[in-house]
Amino acid sequence: MTTLEEKRTTVRQVVAAMSAYTLELRPAQVKLNQNESPFDMPPALKQEVLARVAQRPWNLYPDFEGVELRSAIAGAFGLDRGNILVGNGSNELLATAIGAFVGPGRPVIFPRPTFTLYEKLVTIAGGVPVPIDFDPSTGTLPLDAMLRAIDAAEDAVVIVCSPNNPTGGVLPGGGLNALLATGAVVLFDRAYGDFANDALPPLNERLVTFSTFSKAWGLAGLRVGWMAATAEICREVRKVKLPYNLNVISEAIAIAGLERRDLRDRNVAAIVAERERVAIEMSKIDAIRIFPSSANFIAFRTANAKRIFEELWLRRVLVRDVSAYPRMENCLRVSIGSREQNDTFLAALKESV
Amino acid sequence: MTTLEEKRTTVRQVVAAMSAYTLELRPAQVKLNQNESPFDMPPALKQEVLARVAQRPWNLYPDFEGVELRSAIAGAFGLDRGNILVGNGSNELLATAIGAFVGPGRPVIFPRPTFTLYEKLVTIAGGVPVPIDFDPSTGTLPLDAMLRAIDAAEDAVVIVCSPNNPTGGVLPGGGLNALLATGAVVLFDRAYGDFANDALPPLNERLVTFSTFSKAWGLAGLRVGWMAATAEICREVRKVKLPYNLNVISEAIAIAGLERRDLRDRNVAAIVAERERVAIEMSKIDAIRIFPSSANFIAFRTANAKRIFEELWLRRVLVRDVSAYPRMENCLRVSIGSREQNDTFLAALKESV
Repeated sequence: MTTLEEKRTTVRQVVAAMSAYTLELRPAQVKLNQNESPFDMPPALKQEVLARVAQRPWNLYPDFEGVELRSAIAGAFGLDRGNILVGNGSNELLATAIGAFVGPGRPVIFPRPTFTLYEKLVTIAGGVPVPIDFDPSTGTLPLDAMLRAIDAAEDAVVIVCSPNNPTGGVLPGGGLNALLATGAVVLFDRAYGDFANDALPPLNERLVTFSTFSKAWGLAGLRVGWMAATAEICREVRKVKLPYNLNVISEAIAIAGLERRDLRDRNVAAIVAERERVAIEMSKIDAIRIFPSSANFIAFRTANAKRIFEELWLRRVLVRDVSAYPRMENCLRVSIGSREQNDTFLAALKESV
Repeated sequence: MTTLEEKRTTVRQVVAAMSAYTLELRPAQVKLNQNESPFDMPPALKQEVLARVAQRPWNLYPDFEGVELRSAIAGAFGLDRGNILVGNGSNELLATAIGAFVGPGRPVIFPRPTFTLYEKLVTIAGGVPVPIDFDPSTGTLPLDAMLRAIDAAEDAVVIVCSPNNPTGGVLPGGGLNALLATGAVVLFDRAYGDFANDALPPLNERLVTFSTFSKAWGLAGLRVGWMAATAEICREVRKVKLPYNLNVISEAIAIAGLERRDLRDRNVAAIVAERERVAIEMSKIDAIRIFPSSANFIAFRTANAKRIFEELWLRRVLVRDVSAYPRMENCLRVSIGSREQNDTFLAALKESV
């Protein structure tokens, strides 16, 4: 056995100093902790796509470039397949794009609190995280402070998630264009954009957008995401992407999902309607304060997050404890589920606060 | 439009200077270009596992840690699940481990010619690639030269693939232990180890091994790989790994594959027997020289690789042109397929040289 210090020299110091991305796993009948869609693919459609999948050879590598899925996405969003890359969730593509854009010392500006993975990925890439702390209770992201930080930085990259996880707030109108006007590279995570009715932004030579099949499309278990950018950017990011990254089955199922856009539209409409209903009901509870949300979840401040988290769980409802995020003291986050799940949550919440 | 130089400032210079990993895609009846197994999972087993898969919710994220598959692998190889990480092919885990071990300036020693992805990943991580050029026709990797390079370097990481792709050669006996004895971190890619009857090496606090379901297990289309290391190393590499990286379907199918170890054993035995037969037949052809191989492919030198590649393709056989690798001038690589595929290849080769 070597000493701890000797061991540390084997891994990078920035990694040794990091904590792992963690999530407490608990069984719960009403699982509202991961912003998953409550709607699974209908059994008949599952059978249809699995029959297609069974016909494919599993012993052969996927198409080198994910041509079929990229073409289907490009067709659905009015782009060329040269503007699309696909991967195992938008996380993989975000990590890949960071690998392409962020080298040692490059400043990366992002609002905080936000998805903690951004800061980890920037740190691993050797970049300099520049978090812009903001008050998450207002429903808007700190555009002006971000613009000032971009001005003050040299050759900055910006990461922004709008609607933002875990707060639910959005960039003010025109915010993305204002960020792009600075000349900074903008990595725009629109994982929750479907629930804000946000269209895919037009291509821009400094913009990369990240979209996912995990939320609105209800395919979190399949791990499929995509990025859109100019062909020039795609060519560069592709150099960092691993070859054959997406398996043949997830690809086939995502294509089947795209073919049933009607299901996605119906599910998104149901989730948005439920979000509005749940928000109104939660607003009536004096002991909590909800944050305005354009996503498929609602963050809220409580008197005691740990206690209420446990009280909810005792009532079969699992939410996310987000109280360790900066400026999120005593906050919880609940995903919008089915009407029945939401009713169970609301009843449990009233008993718990 | 900005100028080319301005555009280049958006992506990292090391990325702009890189070329993409490419593979010419051509349709061919006898596809022997990607070292795939010729054996697909039997239809009845496919149906069985897909029936299981249909029952799972696709709208929910995978298990955070791939616990089921990690447990199954650990059980099959006599380890604890804390010694295993799973990912989308061993490529993903190799990239992750490089992210954990290789920071800016760290020297990374590897034999060359080898899998080109290693050098790309090291470059992206900011490490310093230290290729050890060797003669690929001998069937052995350059252990002594590697040991000297480790001695001369400060705090080196070593990447070695044995049997090596695309040459087929192996580390000399005791080679892995000799590398570990230097104190260097060794990333050991055993993608082709099944065809050399190599057992999983014992855990070592400086060793990470990478294994795949793509070759011997015949599941290249599913993209599943795993790494084995001490629990300490796994904890550190896990910090760099993306959460929920492996989808639920690939995980379920890999587990089904592990449950049918008999199929894997039979397929590996068939491939190894065919490799020996094909090697003997190729040895009888005066116009080519084969490299000794312990993998599921054979590299060979020809008078004119480009011409013979085309001649083979006209006869429905697609092989890999590896003539651009250092010291591989005029070399091709053929994967070992089914007996029928191999016969077609051998007949075509005799007509082509």
